[in-house]
Amino acid sequence: MLKKKVKKKLEKIVGSENFLDSQQDLIVYSYDATPDYQAIPDAVIKPKDTQDVSEIVKVCNEYKVPIVPRGSATNLCAGTTPLEGGLVMVFNHMKDILEIDEENLTVTVQPGLITLDMIKAVEEKGLFYPPDPSSMKISTIAGNINECSGGLRGLKYGVTRDYVIGLEFVMPNGDVVKTGGKLAKDVAGYDLTRLMVGSEGTLGIITEATLKLIPIPETKKTMLALYDSLEAAGNTVSKIISNRIIPATLEFLDQPTIQVVEDFAKIGLPTEAGAILLIEQDGPAEVVERDIERMAEICNETGALSVQVAATPEEGESLTSARRSALSALARLKPTTILEDATVPRSKIAEMVREIETIAERNNVRICTFGHAGDGNLHPTCMTDARDKEEMHRVETAFEEIFAKAIELGGTITGEHGVGVMKSPYLSWKVGEAGVDAMYGIKQAFDPNNIMNPGKIFAKDTRKRVVVQQ
Amino acid sequence: MLKKKVKKKLEKIVGSENFLDSQQDLIVYSYDATPDYQAIPDAVIKPKDTQDVSEIVKVCNEYKVPIVPRGSATNLCAGTTPLEGGLVMVFNHMKDILEIDEENLTVTVQPGLITLDMIKAVEEKGLFYPPDPSSMKISTIAGNINECSGGLRGLKYGVTRDYVIGLEFVMPNGDVVKTGGKLAKDVAGYDLTRLMVGSEGTLGIITEATLKLIPIPETKKTMLALYDSLEAAGNTVSKIISNRIIPATLEFLDQPTIQVVEDFAKIGLPTEAGAILLIEQDGPAEVVERDIERMAEICNETGALSVQVAATPEEGESLTSARRSALSALARLKPTTILEDATVPRSKIAEMVREIETIAERNNVRICTFGHAGDGNLHPTCMTDARDKEEMHRVETAFEEIFAKAIELGGTITGEHGVGVMKSPYLSWKVGEAGVDAMYGIKQAFDPNNIMNPGKIFAKDTRKRVVVQQ
Repeated sequence: MLKKKVKKKLEKIVGSENFLDSQQDLIVYSYDATPDYQAIPDAVIKPKDTQDVSEIVKVCNEYKVPIVPRGSATNLCAGTTPLEGGLVMVFNHMKDILEIDEENLTVTVQPGLITLDMIKAVEEKGLFYPPDPSSMKISTIAGNINECSGGLRGLKYGVTRDYVIGLEFVMPNGDVVKTGGKLAKDVAGYDLTRLMVGSEGTLGIITEATLKLIPIPETKKTMLALYDSLEAAGNTVSKIISNRIIPATLEFLDQPTIQVVEDFAKIGLPTEAGAILLIEQDGPAEVVERDIERMAEICNETGALSVQVAATPEEGESLTSARRSALSALARLKPTTILEDATVPRSKIAEMVREIETIAERNNVRICTFGHAGDGNLHPTCMTDARDKEEMHRVETAFEEIFAKAIELGGTITGEHGVGVMKSPYLSWKVGEAGVDAMYGIKQAFDPNNIMNPGKIFAKDTRKRVVVQQ
Repeated sequence: MLKKKVKKKLEKIVGSENFLDSQQDLIVYSYDATPDYQAIPDAVIKPKDTQDVSEIVKVCNEYKVPIVPRGSATNLCAGTTPLEGGLVMVFNHMKDILEIDEENLTVTVQPGLITLDMIKAVEEKGLFYPPDPSSMKISTIAGNINECSGGLRGLKYGVTRDYVIGLEFVMPNGDVVKTGGKLAKDVAGYDLTRLMVGSEGTLGIITEATLKLIPIPETKKTMLALYDSLEAAGNTVSKIISNRIIPATLEFLDQPTIQVVEDFAKIGLPTEAGAILLIEQDGPAEVVERDIERMAEICNETGALSVQVAATPEEGESLTSARRSALSALARLKPTTILEDATVPRSKIAEMVREIETIAERNNVRICTFGHAGDGNLHPTCMTDARDKEEMHRVETAFEEIFAKAIELGGTITGEHGVGVMKSPYLSWKVGEAGVDAMYGIKQAFDPNNIMNPGKIFAKDTRKRVVVQQ
């Protein structure tokens, strides 16, 4: 509960219409896309500009009130759940495109802008913002920045980090910092820009961002290859790369996923296939033609059962529907769907997927795996029921084993979703205790009162999802 | 002076043959490529592995002995000058390529490896490491990482930061931290990898790095365009980009530089030309042809006096010699050459170069400007004499005015050289006092005893180069 005095100060900053604390409002903001986490905030606040954000943060810092900055809450690691109460800050009043600069190839945006709205606006001018998280239709750009969101095009084009070149953010003491700018090169001191990217709202509040754009690829072409085994699909991936071709996307579905997708979408996938690769290339027409042709050959050479190259963009779109409908298809099977993002070097994809299957079997849980084969970013997805405590314990054990295996193979616990609460017990597996200490040192230096999204990234203990929920 | 006890402990770690403290050794390591800075260290130490580095750092941390990690000391901001004494750490025993992974497109290296040696090794396998700082023939890879080195290909390919995907480094307390890996995606906690990149040796010592590689471009083509004015050249740059072409390099020389280069190299440049653009495109042959043709048209449309497209790679090389010989040509004019790297949004290039000319005139100093037009990274270069205190004051004033103007135009005080000592008084101009505070918080969290390259990045006061030297 906020003190009356604090509420009064906050209402004075934003106006009472932008300070919500009715029970129904608080419930709306009590969860994100992560199953099984919920916590009621004390209030929801809607700043109209950077000045508002700074003043709100100063009040919160003085009275030690937690602040959870929240985009559209598509977060999958409970990163935007207000676990320690306090304010949820939303950016409905700060969602403008401030400038598209066609000479410097940048777009400057406010935090609450929907990613796809920005993408559409720059594409109208022949420009391209490559990061394409699956949530981009509803996610906000500051949410993407806070999580360093990835997407299907990471292999060729990189992730959000690679496109953020300037930031304005409010420090936990209320100071406003501006970094970078419309600059391809800037080494003035530590790289605060990239430190903020992926910091999950724990170091400050992003109030403006300048993003790098590139010319939009002239053409795109899509193909789908079927395999009887994961290993064969894995060989294709390796051989494409070792032939020095970097496709725009290189996605895969494992056998259990194919089955579920076909049951759902009825698009004629052979449900007995061991794996599917969906491959896209973009760029100048000559290069796309040549790469697609060569990749089709490679698919055949490495044992694809069939290879289908889309003749038209529409046919290409329909091929990608298999991949795009994966999560929707999986989500209808059981009440709870847990989508993870363990990531390994791309050469270890087949081994990792096999291991995931073994782990699922051993723990008697149902896990389907699909994801970004080109960059080793897997999405093992568990269909379960959060109300079944006994099963949830097995699910937790299975994911723990998956994370451990990913680390063993030179991978990471999270490729694009972030640590949040959910993976905080495993962070030291990836970066070691010394790495966590270094990160925590930064957290304390920036936010000594621990008001910025507290409870995220750094584990309070080694409690698991099921314990949190009890 | 090191205490006897400290010396003994350090010698025990590395062996006496790897601990140098004779006067002649110390003089060799007392300076870097920055004019007018020199300071004698207490000793030079050569670790053989990460374990050695960790043990050395622990001793230094206990006895508060400064450590300056040093590659080949091509630094241009006095970043590797041991201004507060202590140890200079060199990596002659840690300069191996540990692995080139052709499946994951990575190279894993030790810190002391010469950049060009690594580039040649990966190019033999058809792979490409784009960052190409002018010093790459002698610079080390850890030096590049510590400075986030840029180069001529920044516009199209990015800088060192964009290719470092995994690091091992020793914290100032001796802890060894490993970040990232052979991973296109990794968001496990704060981005320590990119925090270390460009941290100028002030946060820890890099002992191993994993770098991202890409397939080597199939072909390359070069052209040279002459202009009667800077503005016309600037218009070409803008129009190329707004035509959605991103060339591999887009370099320029201003009139004073052309004059000096021609005097030096006698390659037939028209010394009355107001500016030269050197343009390269790389990639698949069809695309390179098309882009070069279109860019030649644009050069003509925007008022180039002449456009020369190289018919062969050899002719291309000879065209680039004008740009490559710029620094050598300038350096022979006067005893001291100060090469700066103020950077602006690319749309502001012409305005900035004009302003530099005005500033030089006003302060009665000789400044030639060349650099990376495509990414706005200028190299205003002053020919002077460090012994002439009165002139050096004017030089300092001129550069101060140049930095201020760069900031005013939305630019930065340093695009690729780093802050070091030389630009530390100006850091707050770029990132504000709040930004410097945030950076200093990180420094204190990592290195509370201030042993790691002390005196760099953070200004002790606002003293200038000439004052330092007195």
